[in-house]
Amino acid sequence: MSKTVPVGVSGRHIHLTQEHIEALFGAGYQLTEFKPLSQPGQFAANETVAVVGSKGEFGTVRILGPARPASQLEISRTDSFALGVKAPVRESGNIEGTPGILVKGPAGEVTLEQGVIVAARHIHFHTSDAEKWGIQDKQELKVRVGGERGVVFEHVIARVSDNFALDMHIDTDEANAAGVKNGDQAEIID
Amino acid sequence: MSKTVPVGVSGRHIHLTQEHIEALFGAGYQLTEFKPLSQPGQFAANETVAVVGSKGEFGTVRILGPARPASQLEISRTDSFALGVKAPVRESGNIEGTPGILVKGPAGEVTLEQGVIVAARHIHFHTSDAEKWGIQDKQELKVRVGGERGVVFEHVIARVSDNFALDMHIDTDEANAAGVKNGDQAEIID
Repeated sequence: MSKTVPVGVSGRHIHLTQEHIEALFGAGYQLTEFKPLSQPGQFAANETVAVVGSKGEFGTVRILGPARPASQLEISRTDSFALGVKAPVRESGNIEGTPGILVKGPAGEVTLEQGVIVAARHIHFHTSDAEKWGIQDKQELKVRVGGERGVVFEHVIARVSDNFALDMHIDTDEANAAGVKNGDQAEIID
Repeated sequence: MSKTVPVGVSGRHIHLTQEHIEALFGAGYQLTEFKPLSQPGQFAANETVAVVGSKGEFGTVRILGPARPASQLEISRTDSFALGVKAPVRESGNIEGTPGILVKGPAGEVTLEQGVIVAARHIHFHTSDAEKWGIQDKQELKVRVGGERGVVFEHVIARVSDNFALDMHIDTDEANAAGVKNGDQAEIID
């Protein structure tokens, strides 16, 4: 049985706490939805912020909603060199000991004390997909993507939940190295 | 027998004809050596140029010398999006039908009619290395690199010559996707 999964390419983006949203956009501010993401309930917001590192900055970083318990900036390794921030490869939410960064919004600034990461590549599985294919939560998989630039990604982390939709998340470096784009197919080979 | 090869990460760079060097730097101009590269006789020049695409530009692109029979700009796919140039994945020298770009130097400008490529990943083998490992010129290899971001690159092209030193060339997207840097080791697995 071929185990194929659609690829979703994550550009740099930020998740913010409600407290940080209000510090950046004003008291009582609520994010507004630009478009839904593949994972149920998640959305790209209309709002963007600037992030400022020691070597460079990005003026327009998309906020993904809804608000989260901890703020987190997800960038590619290419971005980390451009910003001058030594961001480690981490699973989302695992930000202890990671570097921080200055974030600027239209109504104010926030200095994150931590939370800048390069997201570890992963696949979201609905529980039913994982059961069908015999895949466990947190299992590491090998996944082939791409054509003329074909690549096998090792250490792809399985994340299983009833709240997830089947989707492989890689960043722009990984997508560009493999020559793939949103909606291309990946195959779990091991 | 383990087949290990050092990794060389190529940032964006340009090769120029002597005619284009003179158009950009002045009549009779000769490139000057900044540092030697891994391949015998090749060098990074002190000189840089700017390249200007429809969406963006890079102000400081290193020239690699010596002068070549055809000018060629080698960029990553990430760079191609930033510039707004649809550069195909090609082997060095195979530039027929590729897009061009505007190049600016201190003494003038040149519009390349073609020559913007994303270099296909490849390994340079001295003939003696290739014979020892049973590898043929133009053979496609599978090569593993990296640790926590481990990747197997498929379609890695073998290039064999008495003038080559053993070295695997990947671009910054590929290096960043795999979390590797100059001098790390790659292993040919197939």
